[in-house]
Amino acid sequence: VIDRLVVVGLGLLGGSVAKGARARGLAREIVGVGREAQRLRPALEDGTVDRGLTDAAAALRGAELVVLAAPVRANEELLAECWPALPAECVVTDVGSTKRSIMTLARRLSATLPRAFVGSHPMAGSERTGYGAARADLFAGATVVVTPPDRDVGGATKRVTAFWEALGAARVVFLDPETHDRAVAAVSHLPHLVACALVAAVEQFDREAFGLAAGGFRDTTRIAAGDPAVWEEIFVSNRDALDEALRAFEAALGELREAIRHGGGERLRQALAHIKARREMLR
Amino acid sequence: VIDRLVVVGLGLLGGSVAKGARARGLAREIVGVGREAQRLRPALEDGTVDRGLTDAAAALRGAELVVLAAPVRANEELLAECWPALPAECVVTDVGSTKRSIMTLARRLSATLPRAFVGSHPMAGSERTGYGAARADLFAGATVVVTPPDRDVGGATKRVTAFWEALGAARVVFLDPETHDRAVAAVSHLPHLVACALVAAVEQFDREAFGLAAGGFRDTTRIAAGDPAVWEEIFVSNRDALDEALRAFEAALGELREAIRHGGGERLRQALAHIKARREMLR
Repeated sequence: VIDRLVVVGLGLLGGSVAKGARARGLAREIVGVGREAQRLRPALEDGTVDRGLTDAAAALRGAELVVLAAPVRANEELLAECWPALPAECVVTDVGSTKRSIMTLARRLSATLPRAFVGSHPMAGSERTGYGAARADLFAGATVVVTPPDRDVGGATKRVTAFWEALGAARVVFLDPETHDRAVAAVSHLPHLVACALVAAVEQFDREAFGLAAGGFRDTTRIAAGDPAVWEEIFVSNRDALDEALRAFEAALGELREAIRHGGGERLRQALAHIKARREMLR
Repeated sequence: VIDRLVVVGLGLLGGSVAKGARARGLAREIVGVGREAQRLRPALEDGTVDRGLTDAAAALRGAELVVLAAPVRANEELLAECWPALPAECVVTDVGSTKRSIMTLARRLSATLPRAFVGSHPMAGSERTGYGAARADLFAGATVVVTPPDRDVGGATKRVTAFWEALGAARVVFLDPETHDRAVAAVSHLPHLVACALVAAVEQFDREAFGLAAGGFRDTTRIAAGDPAVWEEIFVSNRDALDEALRAFEAALGELREAIRHGGGERLRQALAHIKARREMLR
């Protein structure tokens, strides 16, 4: 059992971490940190957190595990701000969708003051946002990527891994930050950007067409309803890997378009059959 | 009650038409037509069809309503082939995803032999294919687009509309073929092509990344598992409208990409917020 768990940012992910930790009895005390006291009220009222604070640095006293769950750029600002106040035995992790930037920052910070930061990225979410959408079982069955620091201090990676497993994660995958950012550029950030572009394209091309949208359009564009503030930071944080993934996407789209322009036929059918087989492996 | 209903093609859509008509008692006799006798067996065995034939023209004797439910190009071949054998009082419709091409053909055919063809496109489906995926309630609550002929004969449009309503459609929308094809290029064919390109892009860019795919990627690419033979014909049949929709998509994607390259900020957040609001109107 963690003596004191501090969760910074009680939105969808942070709220789910706190609720899950509470439901599973993973921490003796849970402290929630948010920019506005009012936003912390629901988590206090439903008993998810024991205390709600607006000052992150003050919340760190006695912290055993800190989870940064603000948008990615805000997490980096919080990490730099909190670092000098971190207790020596404390481990810090995050739930951010990009890992190179924050791991580089943590390496730089630990060069002057050795503290333990382990990156995390739970591959779970929702297009719904905020504490109201948070669920104790959001991470149940999920894959969580963990990016260990270059030099592990006090078994930090093991502690973070154990925390995700205790929250119900089906598996923890260790990746270096570069591999992680490239992979999520492909399977998360690119689809998100594409879904957004689809909605924007239909609005521009034929607004009336929304009236005919069936399950296919709804599925394909569901994630376009994600939190703009969160996704602005993710896209920018991972823009080089995303740009590369976009080029691969444009090449793939261009090939299909050419096949259609040339009248389809066996070549197009085979390409679609290959894609179908590949997609079905994901089920 | 329809005296004799003929369904040509007992896949996902045709099978669902036949099952729905049987379950709701819409026809005294249901005849299924397929290229291979063996493929008709499940529908005969479960009592969905009373007879199964491989010769479409032969099946038309005494037909009151014919539903063409093969892929779009095959539907056109079937329509031309069957036209001379159509009883005078019979109405033919289809379930195809494009309407200009088949409506043009029907207009040409009826110039020499007046028969009633009314286009239909139920906005319902599944990435699953074949008779096994067919459901009696597939059209329950769905929107069905109906494209009436220039000159209606014997209340054909009314009869087709009533049939879809009897199958449970929530609303029937009348569109001219051009408006229909442009709209579905935007909300159906474009998302399908984009979902396919996403799967192809990830495979080419970072195969390992499939291992991290969570709900967002699964939702966005679900339709990429659609039937290659069906979609090859749809894409080609609607290629000019699809190409136009693709250009709108590329413009929208390009704008988002530029905003990301320029560091995001308020402009990108506002664009994403606008897209989110637009998407949420679909719920």
